[in-house]
Formats: sequence, C-alpha cells, structure tokens
Amino acid sequence: MSAPAPVLATLLVSCPDRRGIVAALAQVLYGHGANILDSDQHTDPVAGLFFQRIRFDLSQLMTDRVALERSIAELAERFSMQFRLLHASRPKRLAIFVSKYDHCLYDLLLRQRAGELSGDVAAVVSNHSDLAPIAAQFGIPFHVFPKAPDNKLVQEQRELDLLRELDLDLVVLARYMQLMSPGFCEAFPQRTINIHHSFLPAFVGGKPYHQAYARGVKLIGATAHYATAALDEGPIIEQDVVRASHRDSVEDLVRKGRDLEKVVLARAVRSHLEDRVLVYGNKTVVFD
Amino acid sequence: MSAPAPVLATLLVSCPDRRGIVAALAQVLYGHGANILDSDQHTDPVAGLFFQRIRFDLSQLMTDRVALERSIAELAERFSMQFRLLHASRPKRLAIFVSKYDHCLYDLLLRQRAGELSGDVAAVVSNHSDLAPIAAQFGIPFHVFPKAPDNKLVQEQRELDLLRELDLDLVVLARYMQLMSPGFCEAFPQRTINIHHSFLPAFVGGKPYHQAYARGVKLIGATAHYATAALDEGPIIEQDVVRASHRDSVEDLVRKGRDLEKVVLARAVRSHLEDRVLVYGNKTVVFD
Amino acid sequence: MSAPAPVLATLLVSCPDRRGIVAALAQVLYGHGANILDSDQHTDPVAGLFFQRIRFDLSQLMTDRVALERSIAELAERFSMQFRLLHASRPKRLAIFVSKYDHCLYDLLLRQRAGELSGDVAAVVSNHSDLAPIAAQFGIPFHVFPKAPDNKLVQEQRELDLLRELDLDLVVLARYMQLMSPGFCEAFPQRTINIHHSFLPAFVGGKPYHQAYARGVKLIGATAHYATAALDEGPIIEQDVVRASHRDSVEDLVRKGRDLEKVVLARAVRSHLEDRVLVYGNKTVVFD
Amino acid sequence: MSAPAPVLATLLVSCPDRRGIVAALAQVLYGHGANILDSDQHTDPVAGLFFQRIRFDLSQLMTDRVALERSIAELAERFSMQFRLLHASRPKRLAIFVSKYDHCLYDLLLRQRAGELSGDVAAVVSNHSDLAPIAAQFGIPFHVFPKAPDNKLVQEQRELDLLRELDLDLVVLARYMQLMSPGFCEAFPQRTINIHHSFLPAFVGGKPYHQAYARGVKLIGATAHYATAALDEGPIIEQDVVRASHRDSVEDLVRKGRDLEKVVLARAVRSHLEDRVLVYGNKTVVFD
Repeated sequence: MSAPAPVLATLLVSCPDRRGIVAALAQVLYGHGANILDSDQHTDPVAGLFFQRIRFDLSQLMTDRVALERSIAELAERFSMQFRLLHASRPKRLAIFVSKYDHCLYDLLLRQRAGELSGDVAAVVSNHSDLAPIAAQFGIPFHVFPKAPDNKLVQEQRELDLLRELDLDLVVLARYMQLMSPGFCEAFPQRTINIHHSFLPAFVGGKPYHQAYARGVKLIGATAHYATAALDEGPIIEQDVVRASHRDSVEDLVRKGRDLEKVVLARAVRSHLEDRVLVYGNKTVVFD
Repeated sequence: MSAPAPVLATLLVSCPDRRGIVAALAQVLYGHGANILDSDQHTDPVAGLFFQRIRFDLSQLMTDRVALERSIAELAERFSMQFRLLHASRPKRLAIFVSKYDHCLYDLLLRQRAGELSGDVAAVVSNHSDLAPIAAQFGIPFHVFPKAPDNKLVQEQRELDLLRELDLDLVVLARYMQLMSPGFCEAFPQRTINIHHSFLPAFVGGKPYHQAYARGVKLIGATAHYATAALDEGPIIEQDVVRASHRDSVEDLVRKGRDLEKVVLARAVRSHLEDRVLVYGNKTVVFD
Repeated sequence: MSAPAPVLATLLVSCPDRRGIVAALAQVLYGHGANILDSDQHTDPVAGLFFQRIRFDLSQLMTDRVALERSIAELAERFSMQFRLLHASRPKRLAIFVSKYDHCLYDLLLRQRAGELSGDVAAVVSNHSDLAPIAAQFGIPFHVFPKAPDNKLVQEQRELDLLRELDLDLVVLARYMQLMSPGFCEAFPQRTINIHHSFLPAFVGGKPYHQAYARGVKLIGATAHYATAALDEGPIIEQDVVRASHRDSVEDLVRKGRDLEKVVLARAVRSHLEDRVLVYGNKTVVFD
Repeated sequence: MSAPAPVLATLLVSCPDRRGIVAALAQVLYGHGANILDSDQHTDPVAGLFFQRIRFDLSQLMTDRVALERSIAELAERFSMQFRLLHASRPKRLAIFVSKYDHCLYDLLLRQRAGELSGDVAAVVSNHSDLAPIAAQFGIPFHVFPKAPDNKLVQEQRELDLLRELDLDLVVLARYMQLMSPGFCEAFPQRTINIHHSFLPAFVGGKPYHQAYARGVKLIGATAHYATAALDEGPIIEQDVVRASHRDSVEDLVRKGRDLEKVVLARAVRSHLEDRVLVYGNKTVVFD
C-alpha cells in the first residue's frame, strides 16, 4: 500500500522569545499526526523575538484541521504568539497593478504560466488601458480605474472594493506609477508589495536614473518592499544591484534597471506566496 | 537577579527521514532544560534523509551534560541517527598547510586575530620553510616536512603524528602544493578542507590560468571542498566567481584568483568551525 | 543652422600588432570627414594581435562611402588587416531557433519590442510547432522543420536555404534542442550563437541539472558562445552564475538556470548586434 | 637583434568634444616614434566632453621626451585640452592614513608586497600609534599626528607639510576616522581616496551598521571616492555590495563590511595608480 498524497500546510509564528517554544510547537504537530517536512527558525536577540516557519504534511493527520488549529491557537495564547496557518490546497490569489511599463507584468505572467509562482493572478488593475492586451493574451481580467487629482480617493475606494471582492492574498504594484494614499496601503497591510529603484547613494525625487547618471554611480539597484503609508520605506523583502560604468547612458541605466526590477520583484512575490516572509518593526525575516 | 551567562552548544544530526524527529529532539532538549536558540533543518526528499542543526544554551540545564548526551544517544539509536554534540566552551583547533603562496595564510591568520574565526590555529605546516616568518609574526608554531618523491609517505606519517598529537578539529590546505596520498585524506575524513580554482568550463592539469586565458573565459572561479582520496572531487562547501575579460592577462587572472581563493576558503573554514556543515554522499548541507 | 542628423557606422579590425596602426586608421577616417565617436582597442601581447572597434559619424563625410571603404581596404592590405565596416542604416537581421522551451524566445522578442536590440527578428525556426503562437503574437514568421534521424541533413539544408534567402546576420540557438551538424555551423561561422548551462565543475552528458544536484554545487552557470563544429566549445561571448544551496531541488536549479540563460543569451546577442565582438583563435574580444 | 625593452608612458586627456582629436593625438605620437599599446576613449554626449587614455612605448622614440611633451602641449592648446603625461619609469608614491582599524592597511601593504600595486608606499600616517607595528613589519615609516578639537588645523598643516615633502601622488584614507577639513582635501584634489560604507537606502550619521540592521537591509555596500570638501560626496571610483539577511547580527554586517571595504578600496587605489581615472564634474571615467 503506497503512502497517501501529501497535504501540505505552513505555519508561521512570531512571539517574544522564551524557553520551550520549539518543543511545544513540534509536540503539538506531532501529537496530531502532522509530519514536519521543513522548519526554519530565527531569534532576534536585540528585539527579543522568536520566529519560526514550519512546513508539514497533514495527509496522515490523526485528528482534523479544526482540532489542529484549535491546539495551535491554545499554544499561541500561552506564548503570546501571533500565527498564520496556511493550507497549500487553497492557492494564493494576487492582483497586479500596472500603469504603462509592461516588463514586470510580462515577467510575472510568464512565471505564473511556467509554474514558478504558487498563486493565481486574479486580476490586472491599471490607471490606463494600455496594457489590457497583455492581460487578455494570458486570459486575465483587466480593470481600469483612471485617476485624476480630484477622483483619487474615490477610485482607490473602488479598487479596494474590487480587491475585497476578489478575496486576495497579495497586491503587487508592478511599476504602478501612482502614489497610493495611506488608507489604501493600510487596507492590505503586509500584503502589498512595491518595487522601486534604490541607488547607491540613494536618490530621491523624480528622474532617478538621470540623477544616478549625473552622479556617476558604479552600481544601480532595486528594492522590493511591503508598501506602507510611507510608500518607499516599508519593510524590505529583497534587494539586488548590477554594475554600471561611465559607458552607460541614461537609457542603458534604465534598461539595466528594468532587468533588475523584474527579477527582484519576482523573488519578493515568490517569497510572499510561499509564506516565507515575516514582518516585525520595519523589517522582515525572509526564510530561504 | 540577572540571567546566567549563556553556555552554548551545537547539535548536528542526520538520519533517515521519518515522522516525529523534530518533536523528539526538541522534547529531549527541553526536558533537560536546554534552551534552543537557533534551529535549521533540511530534508533531502531524493535521498530520503533528514538533517538538523540546533544551537542551544545549557546555562539553565536541569540535569548535566553527561545525562543530556546520554538522552541524545538513546534518541539517536531509536532514529538510526548520526549526531555530533559540540560545546562552544572547547574552541576548535586547526592546522594550516601551506607551501610558498602566502595569501590564504595571511588572510586566515588576520581573520583569526580579528576574532572572525571561532577556533585556534595550533600550527602552520609546510613542505618549505619560506613562510616561517609569517607564522612567527603571529606567534604560531611552524613545522617543516620537506617532501621528495621517495619520502612522501614517510613525511605524511610524521605529519599525521603531529596532527594527532595536536588534537585537531580541522586541517586547512591553504594552497598546499603537494598532492596528499589517499591515506592522509582518509585519516581526517570531512575534516580536511582544500581550495582550488574551478573554471567555466573546468580545466584540468597544470597551468589552469594559462588554459583559462587561452580559452577566453569570462569568469574565473574557486571551490572549497573537503579533501577526499580523489583530491579535487570531494564534497563542495563553497564556490564563487569573479568576472574576467579579454583585457585580463594571465597575471590579472592569477591575481583575481588569489582574491577569490582567500574569501572562498575563509567562508568554508568559518562554516566548518561554526558546525554548519553536514556531509552526505558526495555533497554537503551548509546551514547559513 | 543645426548639425545634420548623425549617420553612424562601426569599423572592426584585427591584424598583427605593429607600430602606427591607430594613427593610420584615425588619419584615414579624419581625412574623409568621418568623426570618431567611440574607439576601443586591445592588443593581445601573447598572440601578437591588434584589435580595434571604432564607431563614427558619417554625416559630414567629405567624400562618399565607396571612397571611404576603398581607403580602408587599402590600409587593410598594408597592415594585413581583416576588417568589417557596418552601417547602422542597415539594421541587422536575425533568426531565432527554438524547440519547446519558450523562456529565451519570449525574452528576446520582448527585448526587441522594447527597443533594446539593434536588429530585426526575421524568423523563428523550430523543429516543433509548439511555439508558433508566440511568434504569431509578435508578428514574426514561424518556420517548422521537423527532424528525425533520417532527415536531419536534408532539413538542415532547407534551413540553410531559408537563412540565406532571409539574408541574415545572426542565428540564435535559443535552447534549440537539436545538435547541428558541423556543416551547418560552418555555414554561418561566428554568426551562430548558442546558450548552454555550464556548471562548476562542468558536467557533460544528459540531465545536467540532475548531475549538479547530485554533486551539491553551490553555483550554477550559463555560457553563450559561437557555435562551432564542436558545438559547446566555440568562442565564449558571455558567462554568468547564480548561487545555489542544499535547499534547491532539481526544479529550483532548472528555474534558476532558465533565468540565467535568458539574461546571458540576451547580453551575447546584444553584443553581437552592436558589433562589439571579435573572434580569434577560439576566444573573443568583447568591447564594452 | 632583439627589440629594446619597452619604456612605458600613459597620456590622459579630456577636452570639449570635436572632430579630429583622436587622429591628431595618434598622429603626434606616431610622428615621434611612440608605439600605442592600448587606447581607450569615451565621449559624454550630455556634457559634450571627450576623454582618452593612451598607453604607449617610448623605447623607439625618434625625438626625445621633451620634444614629445612639447608637441602634446601644443596640441592640447589647440583643442582646449587638459592632459597628464605619466612615465612608468617614475613609480607613483602614496601615503596611507589610518586610525585603529587595520584591515585596509594590511590589505594594501600585502598587495604592494605581492606586486599588485604599481606604486610605493612612502608613509603610513595616523592619529594614533596603535598600528605602528604593522608599518614597521613592512618597513614603512610611520608618522603620528594626534588630533584634538583644538589642534586639528595645526596638525593637518603638519601632515600637509609631510605629504609635500614626500612628493606624493596619492593619499589613501584607509578607514581614517577623522574628518578632514575642506582645506586638506583641496590641497590634494583628485589625489585623496576615501572609503566608506554605502547602504541601500543610504544611512547617514553614526553607527551605520546599527541603522542598517534596524532597517533590515538585504545588501550592504562600500564606496571608494575622491575626497572633496563635502567628504563623502566626492566623485565615485568604485562600489560594490554583498548580500545580508535577517541572520546577520550587527557584528556580521561589520565583518562583511570590512571584507568589502578592503576590496573596493584596493580596486580604486589600483585604478588610480594605473592612471585609469579621469574626473569631471562630480563623476569619473574609469577605464578598464
């Protein structure tokens, strides 16, 4: 008789660090018949916080999901623990926000089609209709919410209504060229990922590639982070750089930046969808 | 009343994968009063093997080290587990083998002095006396075993006698330009680290940098691995590369290779000294 | 009165190294009224060879293109020089060969559409019809030449006929999973670019990612090179690597390899299309 | 009869871009019998500036150095050109400024001893005596100028007197932990190289590694630049980064930063000593 097909789930926990947490969690899972496949743990000794990601197989559970979740909740109470229990049988749902740049959108849709992302793209949302054909080509619904200074909050409210209706796990701002109001970011806390350039040293304001060119930087970078009310300063999920030289024109820097934005954003989205990211304070734990 | 100073230990285990290992290990440690600080785990689903590294604090142990080790040994027997229990209070001891190149030797000795390596350099061993002044400058005993085709095995035996007398945890071949006989490598299995160049595509034989130059490679690389009877083919611990171009002369490639060898070897040595490396088959698990 | 729009051309030369080449070339260009915008030069002291790439503006030429080319040819004769004179007004034409993997094809077509590649994709050629919809979507003609052991040379001849008819400057083997016969590669010498994995240490034979997994490599790599009769051993144009760890499954390695293949191939194609690559012996000069 | 030993020189020029510069320079060198070995050129189309680095052999000069330099000066006048003519027969002289950190000092001294740097270290200068033994070990004069708020300018004047007496080409601030006054930096314009951390996004103020830790950065970086009156904002010569993760403590970040500072500073110093760097505005051209 062969083993049953695996039924995967992931538990993410964070709590004040104290003795016995690892043993207690392992004991609860083992007691219900869950088989731990992968476990990664981190303690921040400065903040005094404990973090763990446990991936396990429920196919030979001796109780049921409700009983398991109740036991975990009891443990969480005892250790003042925050936790999320995520079942692989329910794939994550994401929406991608874009404006006119298509490189990140194409990259994410192609990765989804190649089976690289453990999630379904439920919608593409934009303030312009330019990229509608790309969404169509991949069979994804496309929603346009044009924005003007006088209708921004109204349109954001309509976007939020749509997102809630779609029951989303993640919003990806894939070079969406509109500043979100604080209210929008707070509506999906730790579930909205943004990508932006990040130069060495950092440049603020418009035309960052022109600034980088004028400064003669030897590296250009990109940062993916959770959007917060202070848009570009949320918890960093992933960063990377590529080399530049005096031979690079502004156009070359922009091109290198595009390649970088694609890969950095995709890595961050992938980490989120695989439940590898825990946020605390203004920083993250990203389990490999 | 403040907490007692931490008393750190690390447990490395590997065994056939099965249900309940994580819970059992955590329970044993918790039961004795050990506090898990850091735990990293890996399952190789292809090989069906389980690996874990647990770092914990023994300062509030409710039993004693002997009792704890006995309990772990009992568990190990039950799960057909191999394990190593390492106490931070006993610093690792290493010997560095060199010939005439000094860059890796200097690098390791400076890192040790800067407190980067959790180990003591007990000896520098060479087949030449050239680098004796460097060892002297850092106050490390230097031993010369000149080698000729007709005395190689005799000299290796004398080296092995010295290494055993020094009670070593690690032998580092830091650009030691003598092939070790299989017997030597087997005397310190998984405790002898070697560094060698590794080009894309790999070149074998003498003058590798000349071969790489002739081939016009765009990257040069270095690999640190455990020495085995097949010297350059043991389990890989760390690898890295740097870019090269047509502008690089053979001398430039050699210089870039030196910088790379230093950093790749140092990372591998550091991982070993911190008990982060587990070997199985011909490969490694290197916990971050 | 404003300056006339620039009329760009590139001159690539190689010859035995001797005194006065740089001055003679600059003098000829200057004498005809060509304005040098960019010049890069390299001498291989081992091979005794001189290489130069000169990009210049012909908009204020005082003679004409024929006269300029004749003067360059005379100079070339005097210095035993090989040269290519390429006019930007004639965009390069390329064909992309694919089988069933679509990642490199998508990547190249999107880059062309974004204006990153200075060339036109004249055709997509395949031994299967699977990727025809992608070519259609970008409006590129798609040609299928199914191959079997008994028709390979016949089909290659038909492919060569097509390529000659299309008047191509470059053939890109974008994960084309058929070994080309030596005759095919020799028909487009230094004009056929191939991409393949290149591990540290290199693995040969089938299932390279499985071999890399079994070996526990810490880096995976890709190499773009000109195809020669010895397919994977032609002159290297570009190489790169990404890090791997014990946590990467074979599928993860394959996914990382895909990302790497795309970017390494695109860089090589871009260098070729911008006339930055000179081949000599089995190696390249790639001017930045 | 064999060729005479090469007598190398380097010419660095910058001027407003116009037609005929390359030809004129090549013609002057050729006319005097100088043989161009290597030439690299760059045009900044935005600034309208032309830059060139020419390395040549004077061993078969048909005139003499004075006549050659006079001809170059005449040409420079005609093209409003700034130029530097540097003879390899006169090795560069540098001073290294340090405080208490020894990693960059050791790295530079070891590289010099290995023949990697084309220059002589004429002095090590410090505000503390801690690192005197390292200078002694390499046989380099060590000068201490202790600094206090009330003697800073006086001590800097003494330092400047020493530097002038030593006839230096380069001052390297190798983790020298004293802010230089504007007057000092202006005394050696484009000849004082500094190294500092540079995070993504950049942190200012004290304890940068603590700030980076608090922010959860995924990369740490280092920047080598020419010191200017605005100390950390001078023209960038070289930058690089290494990856970090939540597992890195502040001490780990500091250690990784040390490794990075060494290599980034050494590359910048090497580029300067080989006359590869041209400064304009607040940026650099660094020829490979």
